[in-house]
Amino acid sequence: MPPTGPGALTARALDGDRRALAKLISLAEVGGAEATEVGALLFGRTGRAFTVGITGAPGAGKSTLTGALVGCMRRDGIEVAVLAVDPSSPFSGGAILGDRLRMQDHTTDPGVYIRSMASRGHLGGLALATRQAVRVLDATGAPWILVETVGVGQAEVEIADAADTTVVVVNPGWGDSVQANKAGLLEIADVLVVNKADRDGTAETVRDLEMMLDLSGERDWRPPVIETVASTGAGVDALWRALLDHRRHLEGTGQLERRRAQRLRDELRVILEERIRVEVADRCRGERFEKLVDLMVRRERDPYSVAEELLAGRPASGRP
Amino acid sequence: MPPTGPGALTARALDGDRRALAKLISLAEVGGAEATEVGALLFGRTGRAFTVGITGAPGAGKSTLTGALVGCMRRDGIEVAVLAVDPSSPFSGGAILGDRLRMQDHTTDPGVYIRSMASRGHLGGLALATRQAVRVLDATGAPWILVETVGVGQAEVEIADAADTTVVVVNPGWGDSVQANKAGLLEIADVLVVNKADRDGTAETVRDLEMMLDLSGERDWRPPVIETVASTGAGVDALWRALLDHRRHLEGTGQLERRRAQRLRDELRVILEERIRVEVADRCRGERFEKLVDLMVRRERDPYSVAEELLAGRPASGRP
Repeated sequence: MPPTGPGALTARALDGDRRALAKLISLAEVGGAEATEVGALLFGRTGRAFTVGITGAPGAGKSTLTGALVGCMRRDGIEVAVLAVDPSSPFSGGAILGDRLRMQDHTTDPGVYIRSMASRGHLGGLALATRQAVRVLDATGAPWILVETVGVGQAEVEIADAADTTVVVVNPGWGDSVQANKAGLLEIADVLVVNKADRDGTAETVRDLEMMLDLSGERDWRPPVIETVASTGAGVDALWRALLDHRRHLEGTGQLERRRAQRLRDELRVILEERIRVEVADRCRGERFEKLVDLMVRRERDPYSVAEELLAGRPASGRP
Repeated sequence: MPPTGPGALTARALDGDRRALAKLISLAEVGGAEATEVGALLFGRTGRAFTVGITGAPGAGKSTLTGALVGCMRRDGIEVAVLAVDPSSPFSGGAILGDRLRMQDHTTDPGVYIRSMASRGHLGGLALATRQAVRVLDATGAPWILVETVGVGQAEVEIADAADTTVVVVNPGWGDSVQANKAGLLEIADVLVVNKADRDGTAETVRDLEMMLDLSGERDWRPPVIETVASTGAGVDALWRALLDHRRHLEGTGQLERRRAQRLRDELRVILEERIRVEVADRCRGERFEKLVDLMVRRERDPYSVAEELLAGRPASGRP
């Protein structure tokens, strides 16, 4: 058996070993010291891939659309990696990818790498795990990375928002859903897709989106609204062109660098908060903690001085 | 001018000086080192007051109800302090108390102390500030403390939930509002009040509440549902008796001590998390931080190792 430590796995993955690559992503998924070591080893080689987040409600047809988009990219000779992130599923990696049938068109193509990730308990949450997995793919040479995720809550939006370009997928009739969620998704969208555009209500939904874009004020990039029927491939070429347009826009205006720097800041803050949160939870249990609670209950110590003591006693360096 | 440091103010407030008491509550409101010092000085004298949280949607008539309740308590010769907490207002202390006209019946009564608090930027949030203010009132001898707050979000519920007994005030027709919020309010309620019970829909609302209580399963205390018309005083005596009943229940079953111990644990956790959040924000700015971000952007350092460095460099003891 080949060596399986982070260093050896990293070296093998950089040599093109797909099994090593899969193991590195599994490490990223679980988090912890080894994931941190992998991240440190690979970080210097990252920043070359362009990342596209694809988000939308369950059933919007994101997987089919992603599969069709991969088809366009392969036709143009472009290699691509797909991370399918499912925050609601405990399964990943080896698990059956449910409705990802379309993806099977590409499973034997060496220019495509497909991988699913689930909320298997990364300490820093799925958003941090996804960033680390994207880094593994980036460092090992994927020029384009598509991150597909169900966009329902804040966490999922964070995952999509970690991409260079964010695609929000809706369906005809979307105008009937809750207003608040709409505003949030529009805010992160660089490209809007109305998928299943062969259904009733498509024109209304497009008009609704354009009106909301009109109201959202001047920006230097107005998200295009693209109609697709992912199951037939209709409109998917237009989506691919929109992605290339947005990439050119980000690169031409210097926004790509600025966005990426801001994302690194955000990530750093999340890492710090998560590390410390875990540390605090660790301190809020055990014999010493219960003794301090007893002292508080007997009014011999007040909570602020106890907090002081618990903070003062923590080690200078936390755990990963 | 008399000395105004936390120690001197505390001594004066314990001597019955109301101006010193008001200043101590202002300190609690703002938070920081002085508030912590006051809390430590007074904590040993707390735990004697019984605290009642009164919460409900804006316009439910909480202030009028609180005023009428104070009337019942004074009739029985009981001294009482009222904290009116408004999370949506930047005003407090000296500000005009808007719809608190009813309270004016009591402003010249030395057996009543009324004070408003607002979200003036306590670092640990209004929930922590309110607990500290309650402590000041407790230590300086208030036997009953009513904490009135608008119950709309999680933070407000936390404020009410920090009381020994929580009263949730609704109006006829309340059954038409959002279901999710209802469940949350029912969960924290020890006593339910249908105020403005001279209006249409009172019977339906009472039935609706009783049915929800039926469905919420066995508990050793079933919250009574009390109809009041605060503006005339109708039903307020029944509310006062319900509060005495619930207090007796808590004391008789030993639940009062257990609840208070649990609240101290919760408060400790919140203090720790807030302290650390502030510390992280502090570390995520300044020249050194920007240099580390630059190194990340140039891919010379990865975010996890930068986080490590920022964590290692923090002082053993944070600021208050």
